[in-house]
Amino acid sequence: MHILILGAAGMVGRKLLDRLVRDGSLGGETITRLTLHDVVPPEAPPGTPVPVALSASDFSDPGEAERLVAGRPDVIFHLAAIVSGEAEADFDKGYRINLDGTRRLFDAVRAVGEGYAPRLVFTSSIAVFGAPMPEPIGDDYVSAPLTSYGAQKAIGELLLADYTRRGIFDGVGIRLPTICVRPGKPNKAASGFFSGIIREPLAGAEAVLPVSDTVRHWHASPRAAVGFLLHAATIEGARLGDRRNLTMPGVAATVAEQIEALRRAAGDAAVARIRRAPDPAIERIVAGWPRAFDTRRALELGFTAEPDFDAIVRAHIEDELGGTVAA
Amino acid sequence: MHILILGAAGMVGRKLLDRLVRDGSLGGETITRLTLHDVVPPEAPPGTPVPVALSASDFSDPGEAERLVAGRPDVIFHLAAIVSGEAEADFDKGYRINLDGTRRLFDAVRAVGEGYAPRLVFTSSIAVFGAPMPEPIGDDYVSAPLTSYGAQKAIGELLLADYTRRGIFDGVGIRLPTICVRPGKPNKAASGFFSGIIREPLAGAEAVLPVSDTVRHWHASPRAAVGFLLHAATIEGARLGDRRNLTMPGVAATVAEQIEALRRAAGDAAVARIRRAPDPAIERIVAGWPRAFDTRRALELGFTAEPDFDAIVRAHIEDELGGTVAA
Repeated sequence: MHILILGAAGMVGRKLLDRLVRDGSLGGETITRLTLHDVVPPEAPPGTPVPVALSASDFSDPGEAERLVAGRPDVIFHLAAIVSGEAEADFDKGYRINLDGTRRLFDAVRAVGEGYAPRLVFTSSIAVFGAPMPEPIGDDYVSAPLTSYGAQKAIGELLLADYTRRGIFDGVGIRLPTICVRPGKPNKAASGFFSGIIREPLAGAEAVLPVSDTVRHWHASPRAAVGFLLHAATIEGARLGDRRNLTMPGVAATVAEQIEALRRAAGDAAVARIRRAPDPAIERIVAGWPRAFDTRRALELGFTAEPDFDAIVRAHIEDELGGTVAA
Repeated sequence: MHILILGAAGMVGRKLLDRLVRDGSLGGETITRLTLHDVVPPEAPPGTPVPVALSASDFSDPGEAERLVAGRPDVIFHLAAIVSGEAEADFDKGYRINLDGTRRLFDAVRAVGEGYAPRLVFTSSIAVFGAPMPEPIGDDYVSAPLTSYGAQKAIGELLLADYTRRGIFDGVGIRLPTICVRPGKPNKAASGFFSGIIREPLAGAEAVLPVSDTVRHWHASPRAAVGFLLHAATIEGARLGDRRNLTMPGVAATVAEQIEALRRAAGDAAVARIRRAPDPAIERIVAGWPRAFDTRRALELGFTAEPDFDAIVRAHIEDELGGTVAA
């Protein structure tokens, strides 16, 4: 089986790649070839036992998508995107990569022809939803995004469903929850604190909490995200019918519940490392975000996330900290 | 006020144009200039008292949209589209006109700059909805189309909302019901019989009914459609908030109810001109179409349709038949 990953150098892309190389197979089929692409040079895990083609380019450039699918990959993971903040700051770049790039990829698959119709897994986002929203948001709720990123992802979903209906590929779109706990350094994303208030105290460092304890949001671990991608790559397409885009399961947790999960995992000393510094700008942004979902369809189709926020904290401690936390 | 109509030679476009010329104003402002565009040469009504620029071209061709908005129209009616059947039969043409053309128009408005932000009225369609659907379909129901036309219109809606949020223009998208009674000759559209079973008997001709009496669908007259367009052009944008796309009100009527309205308007002789010829292919297509809507938002915002199917029949008799029907 030949697998293509677009966005292979990103956090989720790298974790997916590690898992694929560790498993050596996908859905019972041996992986025989990998093609890894990103705008920065991607890397194969050391000792990857199959041929790996690495490429770094802007996949929205004319000809790039054609080149990437020329080897007729059996499964395409399309994780490449300009993130929310940048797509909002740079209108042209967001539409060029997130809309035109996605469409060029889809059209490149179509251009191969000769019965080629790979499984194509597209990472969408809960940013396709915008206020006002019910709580929880069900599977039939309208996509009315309030960011250009959300609009671009919602458009990608519509294209995915139509191209799938046409038999061009066998697409599955998954709307990822906010990934928590993100490993690595704090970043400037408005959502960064959701991970920061767990990751930093567990590493013995201070974290800033810019919103109130009552803020509720929708989370899944990086490990769960990889599980979503693998399941999306292997599920029987016909089970999805024509609705090819699914909100992924997750954990609806308030900041207070996140903090209590941290306390249970690492004690009062860890919680004491959270410094409250209310930021009205971030409060305002976060107020427009979805808080909880009823993801019945994804659950019925076998997608699984953590049962509670304690499990999200545990996944971070196990996967990133070797099982230990700062005293 | 300078008004641009794309799709000015179509049935709805011509009726809109006639009304604008008759009124001489829009929302209390005098119309001083008209720009009419279509892929076939549009015509101004005889005696139109203001300068009219006529143009016929493919508006999705590079440079065309820029040319059309160069005169900075205050209101743009974007009615141009490849219809459902053709967009399904010709994948490339549908996407080129309905998606790329629409986006080029939106980008052309953006390119004008210098504070130019016209009202832009976009005709979408209830084809953005696909089965399974609740009955009635509410304002928050997901757009999950089952045709390429529906996907292209849903994408247009997302672009319209995002470009409006960005201040590029002041957009209002209106999802038209099936327009009934369409004047003119019978056509090959799968929906053609909804109009045919009224129009043909009223003109003394036979009509074919390919589906059962129990089929229920969502209708509005051409006169109501023009009313929607005028209201969409003049309503205060801020009243819509960020959700710029609205399902228009209409009449949910079964074929049996349509026939009884015909009987009340023109008697048993007219009804006797309907010949039943069940067509499983058309039955199947129509089964996937929406049947009824709860259009609370549009009604609250002042959009009005006929109260019942009798009024739709009356509108046809008054507007197309000079008030008289065949004996």
